[in-house]
Amino acid sequence: MATNQDSSSSANAARAILARLYAPITAELAQVEAMYRAELSSDDPYIAQLLEYIEDYSGKKLRPALLLLAAKACGRVSHDHIVLGTVAEMLHTATLVHDDILDDALLRRKRASINKLAGNEVSVLLGDHIFSHAFEISLHCSTPDGAREFSRAMARTCFGEIMQVHNRNNFELNEQKYISIIEGKTAELYATSAMLGAHYAGADEKTSRAFYDYGMNLGRAFQIMDDLLDLLGEEALVGKTLGSDIEKGKPTLPLIHHLQHAHGEARARALEVARGGDRKALIDLLHATESFKYAAGQANAYVQAAKNAVATLPAGEMRDLLHDVADFVLSREL
Amino acid sequence: MATNQDSSSSANAARAILARLYAPITAELAQVEAMYRAELSSDDPYIAQLLEYIEDYSGKKLRPALLLLAAKACGRVSHDHIVLGTVAEMLHTATLVHDDILDDALLRRKRASINKLAGNEVSVLLGDHIFSHAFEISLHCSTPDGAREFSRAMARTCFGEIMQVHNRNNFELNEQKYISIIEGKTAELYATSAMLGAHYAGADEKTSRAFYDYGMNLGRAFQIMDDLLDLLGEEALVGKTLGSDIEKGKPTLPLIHHLQHAHGEARARALEVARGGDRKALIDLLHATESFKYAAGQANAYVQAAKNAVATLPAGEMRDLLHDVADFVLSREL
Repeated sequence: MATNQDSSSSANAARAILARLYAPITAELAQVEAMYRAELSSDDPYIAQLLEYIEDYSGKKLRPALLLLAAKACGRVSHDHIVLGTVAEMLHTATLVHDDILDDALLRRKRASINKLAGNEVSVLLGDHIFSHAFEISLHCSTPDGAREFSRAMARTCFGEIMQVHNRNNFELNEQKYISIIEGKTAELYATSAMLGAHYAGADEKTSRAFYDYGMNLGRAFQIMDDLLDLLGEEALVGKTLGSDIEKGKPTLPLIHHLQHAHGEARARALEVARGGDRKALIDLLHATESFKYAAGQANAYVQAAKNAVATLPAGEMRDLLHDVADFVLSREL
Repeated sequence: MATNQDSSSSANAARAILARLYAPITAELAQVEAMYRAELSSDDPYIAQLLEYIEDYSGKKLRPALLLLAAKACGRVSHDHIVLGTVAEMLHTATLVHDDILDDALLRRKRASINKLAGNEVSVLLGDHIFSHAFEISLHCSTPDGAREFSRAMARTCFGEIMQVHNRNNFELNEQKYISIIEGKTAELYATSAMLGAHYAGADEKTSRAFYDYGMNLGRAFQIMDDLLDLLGEEALVGKTLGSDIEKGKPTLPLIHHLQHAHGEARARALEVARGGDRKALIDLLHATESFKYAAGQANAYVQAAKNAVATLPAGEMRDLLHDVADFVLSREL
């Protein structure tokens, strides 16, 4: 079990890895951060306070980083990329603000979530404002392609999230349906970010599509790992409330795998424990069918698929880096 | 007091007036409705069910009607207008879906609201989906102007709503601040709809701006009347929960006026009644300072300002109709 010191040093280690991965886009990512802060500001003191608070929601900046790395791999980073990187991060922030309502989360990035601070009503409206403003900014690009793709992606993201809520307490959920839910709720925004990075750097249709596939596979792997962490991880390490999936009746890959491979009384017992929301008891059961190992294996397979998607890029520093970014998804501490 | 029969016949009367006002755009409004229905559909049975349910949220279709009437007054209705009329109605629907969370409304268009049916989580996500999909569709136009203006308008709408929540139980709210809140939360979307109707019919900048002012003033008047109805109206007539403003501590124009004109014990009594949320008792107090009359007078003044905004249009059927639409806002049953 990780101590607080361990978790702090492993968080530092993760930051060090990201700093290396983001090295070729350091300047551009700083521009995205500056634009993000400038757009999330207001002359009104109350709204400024709300916006300042949620600045902390911006974490690893994986979506703008994917967009910028794809741009760098395909050509030149332009102002369009800075705009769209900002949009990607704002859309993600808006979903986090609304997720706080969805999940009734107590912790978010180790601080009280915005809905505890300002109530559900303000959280809904603030998320809506950020969505709208992100779409507004996306039209500052030289072409409307980014706006079109991000609005399409967000519509799909919401459908994925709705399907997830709808399948709460549905322990008959199969792996295929689970994957289609995480493709929507998580991977679509990664895929679209990577694709637009390539597209606005002048990549042809086929290459842009390859980056879409890269982001899609990376997103699938990321969410599988995130769900694994929710079951297995340490709260202090991850910085958000854990075990909320199981408490909320959200079946994720290890449980889905277990329910497919356990039979008779063992299966009945797993269902009972899952319905009761007892995370610790569930962990022991799931080890018996190697269900965590299976889920980690699937995440690994999607990371390999992400790497394969960009295999046709010329060998070199940028392709290696895209591979390393994909591997980073697997390296998150369990 | 209106009986159910009275209210049903007055609702029929309102429908008859709207049918006359919308006569020149009957075919185009039917196209908007068809596109709205087509866009709010899904292959997934659960999502289809949710979308079908909220189709009923679409009421008077005042926003697409303003857009189409402005187009007709300035030139020709094009496919762009059908698209943007659909977008206006979808954005309005999305705000209603989220308002159900905001207001915890029990009634919406005389049916249980979506959050009672499917829960807050699904309501947030469904609203987000409709927002995103509306922005996606707005990019089907021949130019990105509509997308840009509607996303800007929605960002302002959300700010207006946040300021309203923030000023809950603030009985020092003055008229100027109240007007700025309703400009955001209501009038901006009317103004933008009317402006885009003119713009996409080939109107010059000055004329488009005049239509923006027309919609802005009409929107101010509409919201003042809506707030009056919330205090004074009959539930069966209006088709939504009444008195929720006062229960929620939202000061609206009659109360703001009263608190500015009552003094000493009378003012203290009004504050006490307002804080207690007793609508019936408040009505009696507000009559003493003619505060309802004042609010209705302000609504009338904004309707006159709306008419003045389009005074430079050539005299004729379309200008008369725009005047009649403005007057309709005042004719809503009290």
